[in-house]
Parts: sequence; C-alpha cells; structure tokens
Amino acid sequence: MAHSDLQDTLAALDALELRRYALRYGMISALWLAETADPAACAHNRGEAMATLQEDDRQLLCGEESQAIVAQLKAHKSQLDFFRAAQLRVMDRDQQEQLRIPAPLAGRIARLTNEATDAWKRAKQKDRWDDFAPYLDQLVAASKEMAVALNPEADPYDTLLDLFEHGTSRAFYNAFFDQLKATVVPLVAAVTKAPQLSNECVRGYFDPAVQWELSRDLATSEGVDPQKLVLGQTEHPFSDAIDSQHVFIATHIYPDDLLSNVFSMLHEGGHAMYEAGVDPAYDLTCLHGGTSMGMHEAQSRFFENLVGRDRAFAKPLLALLTSHFPEQLASVTPDEFFLAANRVEPSLVRTEADELTYPLHVMVRYEIEKQLFDGSLTAAQVPEAWAQLYRSYLGVEVPDNRRGALQDVHWSQASFGYFPTYALGSAYGAQLLHALKASLAADGTSWEEVLASGDLAPVRAWLKDHIWRWGRAKEPAELILEATGEPFDARFYCDYLAEKYTRLYSLNPLILDPKLDGNHPANT
Amino acid sequence: MAHSDLQDTLAALDALELRRYALRYGMISALWLAETADPAACAHNRGEAMATLQEDDRQLLCGEESQAIVAQLKAHKSQLDFFRAAQLRVMDRDQQEQLRIPAPLAGRIARLTNEATDAWKRAKQKDRWDDFAPYLDQLVAASKEMAVALNPEADPYDTLLDLFEHGTSRAFYNAFFDQLKATVVPLVAAVTKAPQLSNECVRGYFDPAVQWELSRDLATSEGVDPQKLVLGQTEHPFSDAIDSQHVFIATHIYPDDLLSNVFSMLHEGGHAMYEAGVDPAYDLTCLHGGTSMGMHEAQSRFFENLVGRDRAFAKPLLALLTSHFPEQLASVTPDEFFLAANRVEPSLVRTEADELTYPLHVMVRYEIEKQLFDGSLTAAQVPEAWAQLYRSYLGVEVPDNRRGALQDVHWSQASFGYFPTYALGSAYGAQLLHALKASLAADGTSWEEVLASGDLAPVRAWLKDHIWRWGRAKEPAELILEATGEPFDARFYCDYLAEKYTRLYSLNPLILDPKLDGNHPANT
Repeated sequence: MAHSDLQDTLAALDALELRRYALRYGMISALWLAETADPAACAHNRGEAMATLQEDDRQLLCGEESQAIVAQLKAHKSQLDFFRAAQLRVMDRDQQEQLRIPAPLAGRIARLTNEATDAWKRAKQKDRWDDFAPYLDQLVAASKEMAVALNPEADPYDTLLDLFEHGTSRAFYNAFFDQLKATVVPLVAAVTKAPQLSNECVRGYFDPAVQWELSRDLATSEGVDPQKLVLGQTEHPFSDAIDSQHVFIATHIYPDDLLSNVFSMLHEGGHAMYEAGVDPAYDLTCLHGGTSMGMHEAQSRFFENLVGRDRAFAKPLLALLTSHFPEQLASVTPDEFFLAANRVEPSLVRTEADELTYPLHVMVRYEIEKQLFDGSLTAAQVPEAWAQLYRSYLGVEVPDNRRGALQDVHWSQASFGYFPTYALGSAYGAQLLHALKASLAADGTSWEEVLASGDLAPVRAWLKDHIWRWGRAKEPAELILEATGEPFDARFYCDYLAEKYTRLYSLNPLILDPKLDGNHPANT
Repeated sequence: MAHSDLQDTLAALDALELRRYALRYGMISALWLAETADPAACAHNRGEAMATLQEDDRQLLCGEESQAIVAQLKAHKSQLDFFRAAQLRVMDRDQQEQLRIPAPLAGRIARLTNEATDAWKRAKQKDRWDDFAPYLDQLVAASKEMAVALNPEADPYDTLLDLFEHGTSRAFYNAFFDQLKATVVPLVAAVTKAPQLSNECVRGYFDPAVQWELSRDLATSEGVDPQKLVLGQTEHPFSDAIDSQHVFIATHIYPDDLLSNVFSMLHEGGHAMYEAGVDPAYDLTCLHGGTSMGMHEAQSRFFENLVGRDRAFAKPLLALLTSHFPEQLASVTPDEFFLAANRVEPSLVRTEADELTYPLHVMVRYEIEKQLFDGSLTAAQVPEAWAQLYRSYLGVEVPDNRRGALQDVHWSQASFGYFPTYALGSAYGAQLLHALKASLAADGTSWEEVLASGDLAPVRAWLKDHIWRWGRAKEPAELILEATGEPFDARFYCDYLAEKYTRLYSLNPLILDPKLDGNHPANT
C-alpha cells in the first residue's frame, strides 16, 4: 500500500468513525432522556427508534466498507502509530463480535430480553419466581448459543466472562473469589459479633431540594468538571458519557437517607471522571470509553469507598455536607461521620450493601451463573441455591424472592458474566491505591494528607495518567501491570479489607490515632 | 405496477421513513439537551455529530432509493389512499427542495450562518451594528442564490416566503399587512393617549421554585398531556416534538415577572398540543409535525392570547395562579388580572410586546427584508430604516441596536421570510376563533361559558379535529378553508383587535358587563 493509499484508508476510517459517533450521540441523548425525563407515552416509538439506530450502527461497523478498512489496515500494521494500531485492534474485535453472532440469533436474543425484562418487572412486583424462571432457562440457553457462536472452542461461560472483562475466565475468577472468600467471610462473621457502629448522627430528614444542590457540589468537589456534566434524577443512579467533553450522572434522592446520595454521587462521579479523562483525541473514535466493566467499576468504587469512606476524607466531606445541612450536622464530628459511613450490616440487597459485604453478594451470583451454565442448576432451583449461599456467606435468611433472586435486572437482560466485574473492580482499585500511595510518598506527601486537604487533584492526576487517558486503547491487565508494576493480585484488596475492618471493629478505640486527629497540619 | 410491487414500494418507503424518524429522534433529543442541560465543553463535538446526522438524513431523503420510491409512487398516484398520497406529496416536495440546492451552496450557507450567529451574538453584546452588517449582506446574497436555485423563475423573496408558508408571496403579505396596518396603527395611537391599564396587581417577587411547579400545572390545565411532556428550562422559551407521543417545552422563569411565565407556557403549550394532536398514524413519517410556521404560531397564539387573555378565562386562570401564590394573589380580582394581562405599551423588543403592538414589530422586519431583497436597502442602512419604521408604526424612538435591529437571532440564521408568519398565525387564529364560536353556539354553549369553566376540552377537540390531526397532510390555506368555510381573510383578526382594544381602552367602564360578572352560572 502506497503512502497515499494508507492516508485514504485512514480518512475513510475517520469518516466511518464520525458517523458511528453521531449515531451514539443521538442514542445516548435519547436514552438519557428516557431514564431521567421521558414521559410514559413515548416508550414504544423510542424502542423503534433505538433499534433502528442500533441497526444502522451495526451496518456501519460490519458493512463491506468497514471490513475492507480493517483488512487494509491489518495488512499494514507496521506503519500504524499507537493510536491507529489500538483503533484497528478494538474495531476489529468489535466487528468480529458482531459478525460472529448470526442475525437471527441476535434478533431472537433482543426479543427475548425485551420480553424477559417485562416479565422480570412483573414477577418482582408479585414476588413470583415461577413467573420468571422459564425466561431464565431460555436466556441461559440463548446466551450459550451466542457464546458458542463467538468462540466454538471455549466453554460458553468463559466466553461471556471474557466478553465483559477481556482476559478473564472461570479459572481466573475461581482463584480470585476463593482468595476473597477466605478473607471476607470470617471478617463478616467477626464483625457481626462485635458491637455495631452507630449511624445515628446521619439519620433524619434531609430536604430533597437541598440534597439536589449537594449532589452537584459533591460531583464538583470530587473533580467532575461542571463544564462537562449533565446532572439528572432517576430511579436507579447511573452514569453515561458521549465523549470526554460530555458526561451524564443520574442520581436518586431519598429524603431520609443522606448517605445514599453522598456515596452514589461519589461512585457515579468516579465513572464520569474516567470517561471525561480519556484522551480527547479518542473522542470521535471507538477508543473513547472505559476499557472494561471491571476497570470502570474500579474508578467508581475508588471514589466511593477508597476515597469517600477513608477516615482522612471524613473531615472535608463532612464540611461540605454541613454547609448544606448546618442544623442537622453542625455537631457531628468527622470520626462519628466516618464510623457511620463504614457501618457493616449483612443484608439481602446487593445495591444497598456496605463495602465489606458487597463482594459476597457478587459471589452468590457468580456461583449460581456458573451452575446455570454447566447444567448443574436449573432456573427452578435458583431460589434454594440463593438462600443457601446467602446463609453460608452472609449469615442471613432470604425471606422472599423480591429481595432474593429477583432483585437484579441483569439476568433478564442476558447479562451473564457481568456481576463478577463488580468485585473485580474493587480489587483493581485496591491495587491501584497501593501504587498511588507509594507514588505520593515518593513525592513527599501521603494519601492521608491529600485526602484531609479535600483537594483530590493529585489522586485524579495519577489515575488519569495511568488509567483514564488510555480509554479503550489498553487492556485492563495491561493497565494494572503498567500502573502498579505487577500483574493483578487480589491480595491488595484482601489486605485492605482485613486491615480496615479489623481496626474498625476489633480495635475500635485505636481509631483515634493521634496522627489523624482534628489538629492534623494538613487540615489547618 | 402490479399490486405486489406497490406493496413492496410502500414497504421500502416505511423502512426509509423509520430510518429518518430514528435520526430525527436522536437529533431532537440531543438538541433538547443542548438547549436545556448541555454543558459548555461539548458544543464543538455536538456540532460535528449534528452535522453528520443531518447529512445522513439528507442522503436518505435524496438518495437513489428514495428518488426511485417517489418516482414509482408518482406513477401510481391513483392507487394511493389519502395518507399515502399526502406522504408522497410532502416527501417529493422535501426532496425537491433539498435536491435543487447545490451541495456547495448548502455548505457555504451552513458555514456562513454558523459564523454569522456567533458574530451576531458578539455584535449584540457590544451594541455594534457595523460588526454584523457585512454578514447580513452576505446572508442576503447567499439566500437569494438559494432562492434562485429553488425556483429560477420566481422573485427570490417570494420563494423564501413560500418556503416558510406555502402559498404566500409579497403580494399576499402586502395586502395582509396593509389591511392590518390600517387597523392597528390608529388603534395603538389611540390607546397610547388613553389612561393606562394597571398591572400593579401582578407585580412582586414570585419564588422561582413555585413558579416552576406552576409551569407544569399551566401546561396540564391547558391540556398538554403530562404522559407526553418533557419540561425544561432555558434562556429563550421554545417547544419541540419528536412525534405525537413526545413533546418538549422549555420555559424561562423570571422571579419578578409572573406573567412572562404564564403566557410563555400557554404559548408553548399551544405549539406542543398541535404536535401531540397530529394523527398518531403519521408518527413515524414525514407527515408528522405542523403544516407551516404560520399554522404553528396560530395554535400557540390561540392559547396565549385568544384563550389566555380573554376576560372569561381570567377567573380559572387566576384561581390556578392563586393556588400557587395565595399570599400575593388572594385579593386580586379576575377583572384586575384581565386588565393587567392586556396592558398595551408600545415598546422596542418584539418578544416582550403585547398582543396589539406585536404585529407592528413583525411589519418592521417584513418591510426591511423586502427592501434588502429588492436591493433598495443595504445592511448598513438597516438601523436608520428600523428607527424610522418604529417611529412611524409604534411611535417609539430606538436608542440602540441591541434593542433595535440586533435584537433577533433570525437574520443571522438566514431565516428571511420567517417573521411574517408570526403575524399571519395570529390572523389564522382569529379566523379559527370565529368559526369555533359559531360551532360552540350551534352546540348550545358559548366560547365565554367554555372559558369560564376552565375546561378547554371543547376548544381542543375542535382544533384537533380541524387542524391538529392533519399534521403536514394538508396545506395551511386548505385547512383554513375547511375549518372556517371561507378562504383566509385578515378582517377577522382586524375586527378582533379593534373590538377588544376599543372596548378595553375607550370604553373601559363597560368592561363590567353584567353577563360576565363573578356570578356567571358557568363559574359556580
């Protein structure tokens, strides 16, 4: 290929990427409105429009022109710079994933998930597992078919795990969860026997209009650029992004639960900063976005838990909350707030779980998915397995399916293999934190000092440099290795949890470490 | 064409229409966000995305497949039902409009309006006409070129007038405005000498958060289906729609101007009800939407002025306002409110004008556009002509260009020929009102009774039946003829204004007509 031919191919690639970007722009805008503002009447026509735009995008990604571009670029890999090589790799993979799934199967899955999501909603309302179970069996079967189409030689569940998090498999997650279980299950058992932490200091009524102003302040103070942010309200908090200049956060405000707003915002803000931190040069290409579900969750949980629930951050965070709710919070101390924010309570519902018990909720779903896919469990048997696992991991009894196997939307959308990334993200985060702490120390400061100052700029700078800016141009395993100097290792997460919760619950009085009292130099 | 061939062609048409609908869905969603929520940083990339989607849509409308569909349907017109025949007519016209404008000219106009809009914003801020004038000359020249491309045989300004309102021309508007001027100019002169109506009763501070709740209530009580409505806030109020199931209203709330919110909402609600009232069978086709700018404005001004500023509607409207602002409004009487809402005050800014002086603002722009297009005026001479016309029509002196020829965005967007539709819409509305009153009388009720009841269902039903449901399937002149039994005639509008304002200002005491006092049976 002569130089000018390569330039022509790259120009054709840019034109194609721009058209796909424009379709995403429309779809993400419409879906944002659907979640935060759309009136009921438009649901049917919106479905038609979204399916059509999705199909237009599939045609662009998989069409002859697109395939020719990929083939031409592959033939001249050595001439491509880092950006173009990454773009080719990601586009090729996205294309192959689409091309390998036969159109009739894709259509069947789309219709099935559409019906199943409706059925799931109704089944959850009525607390009737049997109404959903037949769909689950069909969803598993169809997902197996899809996995086999994607990779005929691999185990189907391995293929699905790899789809959500490249490089993972049952072997990977088995090892990860075994290690995690060995740490967390005994910790939770010990914590449950210890005296409970009080959250009395943050209970009460918090005016929703004031909380709404607080939501915006939380995002900004955490580091979300207000020039890039659209903020809205919805039933279940989420975030989304069009490109590095345009991010969305939807939150949900409960008048009697201030902490839910606080930690949801910090969490979604982490997702949003990841997307906003991607190299703007990737904006109009397939390289924009997070590299995987796990890496995305690593960023959100980093700000929710590692930052937001750290003792050193309690003072600036509480100060922000108090500026909005002076009457309720003026007499609360940072340590009281810190303890309230870290109360552990084995419970039934994943999305309401505390930092320590959260991965156990994930493990329950992973165990069940594995068994659904290896055929050792049918949908009808799920509630029993669910109850047994919650008893064994969390020590709680499941009273109904609404707060049991019907609680999550994921299965109705055939998102098998997605759940494990939630726990993996926390573990990525702990390993990143370990490296970041060393980096701060080398710069003559410390994690605690940075957090106590309330200015998270050094944290964002490090994450942006090592993770965010790369978008989809590097794989999760590659990012972890380069950012931390070693391959992924679950021990960082296990050590973090063991140290934090042993101290919090077993050695409660020691929390008033003189190094971190109210007179810390960084606070004055 | 065999029957099955026609069916195939219609299926291809449906598929094409669905793809265009999906693109519109994305664009309207994105543009709504741009106006009501979008952060500053995303403007550039949004421009790229919108231009790309626009071009995708142009390709669909003008591509070979689309042209073949139109040609095949034309060859078999006699077999088409009303819906398909209208769809063919509108699509053919839209296609021809696009095809006749050479791509380089379209691109040049797009770039020019983009630059000119920026230049206009800056010129307005600095009050410097000379910074904008060169753009205006270029915009007029480019628009002339476009008009000639669209119709080489017609006068360019006639072509542009017809583009915004099919069937109109300079001859049409000259006659219309001559008649209107003969009524309104003397009326305004007389009113200016009469004792002024007081708006004291609605002055004060009105909490924006409460006004926001009121906005929603106003739309709902007027008849906008809340199941279809997305409501937002923006700088300049507007409305938009995706289809009959999904309408948007953006409003602007001023803490010290309650009436602005009230009449903006009633106005935008009229636009929204028109779009929501189109036959749902047209939703995913080119037939959805208002048939013309003038007919759209007829609906909005109908609810803003003919309903909203009618004496009989003052009581239910004031009751709604009082339920939100009991302290400020409890002692205001419906007649005091009615008088405040109808205060006439010749002023400088079109968008703040009252019902009576509004068409004079429009006439100023029409006169100037005519002269810009016939070459008797250059951009540099516009401020002088503007000042002279405002003096002559409204009796006011123009102190600067910010409140003079720089006040409107339209010219910077090359929307020449658009302004006259604002006045024409009011005139359509008056003629429709005349027919509706006769229809209500035939049903044994009256306009005043319906308005005093606060339930506008009979008004909506009549407008929906005669105007709204037809979408773009009938031309404005056709709709007026069928709805009122006679061709468009400006005398209804002139008579309406003369009667209303003579009574309000010359015969002020007679306003307390015993037929319409507070004990009217329909009010109890």
